[in-house]
Amino acid sequence: MRKFLVLLAASLFAHTAADSQATAKNKPNIILFLVDDMGWEDARKYHTPNIDKLAAGGKVFTNAYANNVCTPTRVSLVTGFNAAHHHITNWTHPEKDHSADAPDDQFLPTEWNYNGLSPQPGIPHTFYARPLPAILKDAGYFTVHVGKAHWAAQGTPGVSPYNLGFIVNISGHAAGHPQSYLSEENYGNLPGKNSAQSVPDLEEYYQSGTFLTEALTKEALKAIELPVKNKQPFFLNLAHYAVHVPLMADKRFFQAYLDKGLDSAEAQYASLVEGVDASLGEVMQFLEDRNIDKNTVVIFLSDNGGLSNSPPRGGESFTHNLPLRAGKGSLYEGGIRVPLVVRYPPLVKANSTTAQPVIAEDFFPTVLDLAGITPAAAGTPIDGRSFYNRLKDQGSMDTGRAFIWHYPNKWKAGDGPAINYYSAIRKGDWKLVYSLRTRQSELYNLQADLGEWHDLAKQYPAKVKELEKALGQILKSYDAPMPVERSTGIKLPYPGTN
Amino acid sequence: MRKFLVLLAASLFAHTAADSQATAKNKPNIILFLVDDMGWEDARKYHTPNIDKLAAGGKVFTNAYANNVCTPTRVSLVTGFNAAHHHITNWTHPEKDHSADAPDDQFLPTEWNYNGLSPQPGIPHTFYARPLPAILKDAGYFTVHVGKAHWAAQGTPGVSPYNLGFIVNISGHAAGHPQSYLSEENYGNLPGKNSAQSVPDLEEYYQSGTFLTEALTKEALKAIELPVKNKQPFFLNLAHYAVHVPLMADKRFFQAYLDKGLDSAEAQYASLVEGVDASLGEVMQFLEDRNIDKNTVVIFLSDNGGLSNSPPRGGESFTHNLPLRAGKGSLYEGGIRVPLVVRYPPLVKANSTTAQPVIAEDFFPTVLDLAGITPAAAGTPIDGRSFYNRLKDQGSMDTGRAFIWHYPNKWKAGDGPAINYYSAIRKGDWKLVYSLRTRQSELYNLQADLGEWHDLAKQYPAKVKELEKALGQILKSYDAPMPVERSTGIKLPYPGTN
Repeated sequence: MRKFLVLLAASLFAHTAADSQATAKNKPNIILFLVDDMGWEDARKYHTPNIDKLAAGGKVFTNAYANNVCTPTRVSLVTGFNAAHHHITNWTHPEKDHSADAPDDQFLPTEWNYNGLSPQPGIPHTFYARPLPAILKDAGYFTVHVGKAHWAAQGTPGVSPYNLGFIVNISGHAAGHPQSYLSEENYGNLPGKNSAQSVPDLEEYYQSGTFLTEALTKEALKAIELPVKNKQPFFLNLAHYAVHVPLMADKRFFQAYLDKGLDSAEAQYASLVEGVDASLGEVMQFLEDRNIDKNTVVIFLSDNGGLSNSPPRGGESFTHNLPLRAGKGSLYEGGIRVPLVVRYPPLVKANSTTAQPVIAEDFFPTVLDLAGITPAAAGTPIDGRSFYNRLKDQGSMDTGRAFIWHYPNKWKAGDGPAINYYSAIRKGDWKLVYSLRTRQSELYNLQADLGEWHDLAKQYPAKVKELEKALGQILKSYDAPMPVERSTGIKLPYPGTN
Repeated sequence: MRKFLVLLAASLFAHTAADSQATAKNKPNIILFLVDDMGWEDARKYHTPNIDKLAAGGKVFTNAYANNVCTPTRVSLVTGFNAAHHHITNWTHPEKDHSADAPDDQFLPTEWNYNGLSPQPGIPHTFYARPLPAILKDAGYFTVHVGKAHWAAQGTPGVSPYNLGFIVNISGHAAGHPQSYLSEENYGNLPGKNSAQSVPDLEEYYQSGTFLTEALTKEALKAIELPVKNKQPFFLNLAHYAVHVPLMADKRFFQAYLDKGLDSAEAQYASLVEGVDASLGEVMQFLEDRNIDKNTVVIFLSDNGGLSNSPPRGGESFTHNLPLRAGKGSLYEGGIRVPLVVRYPPLVKANSTTAQPVIAEDFFPTVLDLAGITPAAAGTPIDGRSFYNRLKDQGSMDTGRAFIWHYPNKWKAGDGPAINYYSAIRKGDWKLVYSLRTRQSELYNLQADLGEWHDLAKQYPAKVKELEKALGQILKSYDAPMPVERSTGIKLPYPGTN
């Protein structure tokens, strides 16, 4: 059934190919400015004048969600499917057929789509979809990917952004982080020192003193010169490697944070954040210089919550995203709630805010709406919902929707706060966090307790039951992967079904 | 003065930017199918049905010339300048500010543009030009580079094909050869085993059994799908790494050559040649399948003469290009005469041949003529001459032109036949080979003695004097780099000037 729906979706999109480049002329440019591992509050904590300016010119989503790790989010963004549905629930290992899951005493390795996204059917352990850039390209967009890709493993078609519909790809490949941010280290390409994380395509900047974030920005702006000149709409997926580990000092900003008293690791982290902010500033300046800032949608987003393990962060683990609890890897808010700003003057009111919850898979239909591509607007069997009307402040908030997260995987050798083998559901202000290990739920009211410190499960057993059931039903409808007990060889039942 | 001329050329080309994509619709597609180190007679010696078919459908140039090593040719192809004029007389080292010249007892290191081609002025030791792909892009072409670039060194703008005007670049960078042709070795990207020669951008094929030649062909055909669909003319620079060392077996063809009795190294070489032939076949099939074979100019060319050093070749050194003398690195015909076939049905008579000598820098104005870009046709201060009329068999042969080669460099530790520190000039059937070491000339009549075995210098002293003078005058007008005597610190005078 799921396969049928996917094929149906593909055929619904097929006629968008009829959109010619000519009819695309009046479509807006779209920039997805995607940061890696940036925390929800980072823009408030560090010097980020350009993010602030973007927020002043657009709308801040205070309840925006991604997944707890990166590949699931990246796949959801370009497919409209929830991670539990596309079954890429963890980050993909660079090598084919290698699950990134750490070994576990309780569970056998979970079967998930560890080879990632595939634009071709029939590749084992991949999720097949016709991704957003391919649809946009067929609709006349000039599609550019710059930076971290991490959609799929080496030896599969999805590893190449070209196969996903990008006309230009610079530096996107199988890796989820850079070996080095430094031109002095050739971004990880020093002879005999390479790894799967060596950043490709930047030889121009070797030994030049150009920090990776800066080099990617330059490449992105060069790549969109052509569509800007030709008045062809472009889709730029500027996916920075920053602020992912390895934490390294962006020298343009590092010293100022040391001077403020941050320890070395935190000053490095802060310098990475400010480097991303500077990149955003350069992008916005480019748009203004070419007088296309009004006709360009700029979406600023992080792919998961901020990293909060120490080390490599300074200070104490799981405190870096306060007032949110925990960080990357966790299903607490610190791991999944992300900064989101959308600027698009013709549609989006400047200096506005919305509490409407949105999630990674919502970007797919929203971007199609922004691009005026009708099948998504008409409704397709994806999981995401367009927040186009929210951008326009039109209609009412969507308060009844259930949001789910599913991580039947092991991120770290040791468990942490809602890290390793968790599922979660949010509906309205209620959030249930379900441990797959213990099959026990925690219940929080986010309105009253954003930090998820007061477990109300015992107080509200009916709410727990209701949310467990809803979570289980959605997971079942997605045929979501589940852990298998090592001792019995039996796959866990879905929550609320026993 | 030279700088002025370059700027003049740039301004003459500037108005071609006015050609819009729309007016470009009727321009032919252009494919430069560039092989590396393929010898003049290789297509006759090995099984190359697709090259044969191309020849049967187009015109064979029996007197086509490149330079004796690769970068000079690659720069001449996209700039229209002779190597002695652009001063990139040798292959460029991957690292910036490293001359590739071997040390020498007689001469100090020659000052040449060892950082390669630059699309920006002011980069030390580069030749600044507005290259062919940039001009074609501005004229509405969709420009694609796939394979070996080798136009410039890391840390300079010319190292990135994007900066040279290519919209798409796959696998082109600073290196002049691949670390490995094998997907089993990740084309040189196995962790901890990388070098400047690790081939980028092909992670999709890792461990897939896809030989490099095949992977590049697939990438090239995927990249031109978009312009074909949009009916936008494309320029594809499909620059194979084959048949350059490291000699490796293309398993699709290797065994058959062993069975024919070739030794292992020669069977590897032959398999590389046949792999290139298969690639050409796939390209032509693609064009036919999409019914664009008639509107596509296909230029088949090698960047210098065939390698004839043994090892790595089997058999005896300097015999592999017989009846031509010597091979890559040499200014004898074996090092500079290359296979050239042009197929373009609307213009070029099938199964035709021409003895008109042409040289690398002639491709620049010829391609501009084919693309209907006028400044070149009207004449610009480049060195190359368009052979557009020759393609049409129109007008008379150009017999009076002097062709020169200049290699004030050291390719190998030991000298060889016309290898290291040589210049040469051909005018009509006469060819003078001038040793910069001894300042002595050899004289050959190519009509009577294609193999350059009978030095006629003593018999025709007046012809020697005439050609030395002509060679010296051209070199002087190009301000060509010259070796400096280590013992005196004095730069050699140009030939015929003392």
